[in-house]
Amino acid sequence: MITKDIKAKIQAVVGKEHVLDAQIDLFGYSYDSSFVPLVPPNLPEMVVRPLTTEQVAAVMKIARENKIAVTPRGAASGRTGGSIPLAGGISLSLDRMKEIVELDEENMMITVEAGVLTGDLYQYCAARGLFYPPDPASYKYSTIGGNIAENAGGMRAVKYGVTSSYVMGLEVVLADGSVIHTGGKAIKNVTGYNLTQLFTGSEGTLGIITRALLKLIPMPKARNTLQLMFASLDEACATIHKMLQSGIVPAAAELMDTISLQAVARHRKLEIDPATEACVIVEIDADNQEGLDRQAGQIESIATGFGALAVRIAQSAQEAEEIWAIRRGLSSAVGAMAPDRLGEDISVPRSAFPEMVRRIRAIGEKYELTIAVYGHAGDGNLHPSVLCDLSDNAQAERVHKAVHEIFAEALAVGGTLSGEHGIGITKRPYITSALGDGGVTALKLIKQALDPCGILNPGKIW
Amino acid sequence: MITKDIKAKIQAVVGKEHVLDAQIDLFGYSYDSSFVPLVPPNLPEMVVRPLTTEQVAAVMKIARENKIAVTPRGAASGRTGGSIPLAGGISLSLDRMKEIVELDEENMMITVEAGVLTGDLYQYCAARGLFYPPDPASYKYSTIGGNIAENAGGMRAVKYGVTSSYVMGLEVVLADGSVIHTGGKAIKNVTGYNLTQLFTGSEGTLGIITRALLKLIPMPKARNTLQLMFASLDEACATIHKMLQSGIVPAAAELMDTISLQAVARHRKLEIDPATEACVIVEIDADNQEGLDRQAGQIESIATGFGALAVRIAQSAQEAEEIWAIRRGLSSAVGAMAPDRLGEDISVPRSAFPEMVRRIRAIGEKYELTIAVYGHAGDGNLHPSVLCDLSDNAQAERVHKAVHEIFAEALAVGGTLSGEHGIGITKRPYITSALGDGGVTALKLIKQALDPCGILNPGKIW
Repeated sequence: MITKDIKAKIQAVVGKEHVLDAQIDLFGYSYDSSFVPLVPPNLPEMVVRPLTTEQVAAVMKIARENKIAVTPRGAASGRTGGSIPLAGGISLSLDRMKEIVELDEENMMITVEAGVLTGDLYQYCAARGLFYPPDPASYKYSTIGGNIAENAGGMRAVKYGVTSSYVMGLEVVLADGSVIHTGGKAIKNVTGYNLTQLFTGSEGTLGIITRALLKLIPMPKARNTLQLMFASLDEACATIHKMLQSGIVPAAAELMDTISLQAVARHRKLEIDPATEACVIVEIDADNQEGLDRQAGQIESIATGFGALAVRIAQSAQEAEEIWAIRRGLSSAVGAMAPDRLGEDISVPRSAFPEMVRRIRAIGEKYELTIAVYGHAGDGNLHPSVLCDLSDNAQAERVHKAVHEIFAEALAVGGTLSGEHGIGITKRPYITSALGDGGVTALKLIKQALDPCGILNPGKIW
Repeated sequence: MITKDIKAKIQAVVGKEHVLDAQIDLFGYSYDSSFVPLVPPNLPEMVVRPLTTEQVAAVMKIARENKIAVTPRGAASGRTGGSIPLAGGISLSLDRMKEIVELDEENMMITVEAGVLTGDLYQYCAARGLFYPPDPASYKYSTIGGNIAENAGGMRAVKYGVTSSYVMGLEVVLADGSVIHTGGKAIKNVTGYNLTQLFTGSEGTLGIITRALLKLIPMPKARNTLQLMFASLDEACATIHKMLQSGIVPAAAELMDTISLQAVARHRKLEIDPATEACVIVEIDADNQEGLDRQAGQIESIATGFGALAVRIAQSAQEAEEIWAIRRGLSSAVGAMAPDRLGEDISVPRSAFPEMVRRIRAIGEKYELTIAVYGHAGDGNLHPSVLCDLSDNAQAERVHKAVHEIFAEALAVGGTLSGEHGIGITKRPYITSALGDGGVTALKLIKQALDPCGILNPGKIW
């Protein structure tokens, strides 16, 4: 319970106007971009919007003293319920902390506050010839703090890695209100345990990330896009595999199955050869046109060798845009095919990608459900989308069984529950099947050590 | 105290011949490659050499029940005392666990036991066209388990990262004898906290690493070496910096200062232009000769632009070997210049490299000591070597003051205590200055959570 007295203390820290507790505001902070039901709403008791690390620390001290749950929040674009204030208490929004603190061009590193939008960060760096590669689908509106807390991925992971690959150091407010700084600008750093990577992807359960030091790389000078159509999924996967084995690492390699393609064709009024079972969109980049052309030629030759129906190499930036528009419009196109859509995020060994797609199809047939499959074939991260009508109770039950089986199959082929969305609320029931009792116990011991009262983002991960 | 009864139990687990407690054996396990004094010796009470994970787990259960300290050990090639059994107890040698469990060529990953020599792993992969890049100086005789426990670095870090960049998953025996498996073959994986990276670099204090899943990459098809001589250290550093900013990432960029060069010249009877203040050896690699030549040309032009005294591009594999022989012989050459040599391992932001070298020189002058400086300029990791005679007590005191100041200056320029050797015993006194009270407290909380009785490698890190 947040008493009047506690409220006054918090107001004194962040200013009255940055403490919200009107019902309408509380409702706005009760959900995110996941499928966690809105009814009954998971209302916080209070929304607090600090501006500085000191304010975050002071709020955490008050929360700790009074055992108030605190759920940190970036842009609430998460897909597994990470920022939903399940236990009420304080929704701690970092959205006012948007300062780009320092660009260190010499070391190619940038220090930003947690609330900076990832898209703004990207643009800021790009304007200076520097590249921050992680590109979760939400990057235009999600915050870097949220990206780090969830260890967000994206399409460029196959070549450039995910968010964690770029986090060099963090400023974190712990559950007791103390502030620690992890990592730093030294590229090699083995001083103490790797707290930077422990907090990255900890989903707001171990500390509040207030500031991050991120690595940048030079912006590639040339970029192009290829679209490859295949009559068989296996040929599509074999092409990607052969590319990677040959040392051609694309900046992105996205795969769409027949159902996804049909959805796009309908949505965008395109004609797509019905013999096409899989479409692969590849982005390549290089330091010059020559390197780009060489890669494109090699990819074309590999795809042709695996019987590609069509290979299209974009001849202009506009054509590349057109090709990518198909991939980017996919989520809406697929979403438009049914009243509800349950999008998942499993990740499997790259070699298991075609087998996993086949297993998902078999699950769809078994439960009489349409499941579109697309994803980051280059890194084994799939997004099966169950197209359904959850208002039909019998169907809803089949959907949940199907999702359960998809997780089980992902684990069976050596994969994992989540590639880039985190566990949050929606995947909690499955965590032990993925990590085993011993693994989950280890997580809980660490959680207990750093947050003994359990006030940080309670109800998540397990 | 290891009683007869406990000894019998341990013998029953691993076999009598794999339990050593003769004085001569205990002495052999009392030291590593660090400067921790041999007198008085840090003898274990017993050396145990398990063959399987199950045996490690059984030994840990016995140790836990009887509160016996356990210090894991690979090849004892560590430089900070990590494998020294400071509290007696069991020296747990993983050297018999040398199986290469699985090479998964399709996913380009390999599963190995902890005792596999890193050099053997490298060769095994190289023979199959695959590349395991981390190359700590000790790689021919150090074990992969030790490399992971210390998060070992090496010369290729500038382009390829350090050991942790390749660890996809671990099998770890915890202090209570339970076995957990972290990570896996899914490239994107955000299921639970990143335990893989928490155990990597934890110096044997959180668990015993028994098995690792490692990422491999295709072996670069072409490789060459350049030697650049400069009249000024700043020009040498500016050249490396400009290369990286231009997107030319060398596979290695090693720098040697005047004192190091003089040592090599004397040792190898070479003539080196006395005007040379810094020598940079650069390794480049690419997928074809053309890419290699382009890089070499660009580097030559950048070096010339910064006034290089000489640029030598190896014209044959033999010439490349000759150039690298200088760098590889450096440690012996420098070591031969004085009765004792205290080699350090600080790591600073890349931009601070020249400033740090200047500060080390000033410290050398202040304490009337000769300090050779060389290191991985591409990633900011320096190895200052204090050449001295520790039997001279007055000099020994100056040496310790100088090392203390080197650490302080490394932190002052935004760097850290250790780039690749770990904290172990030798850097314990400085850990709080690097991480702050809050940081060290966080480490201790995690340690306490996973090893509440403090039996795993006691006396290390803090």
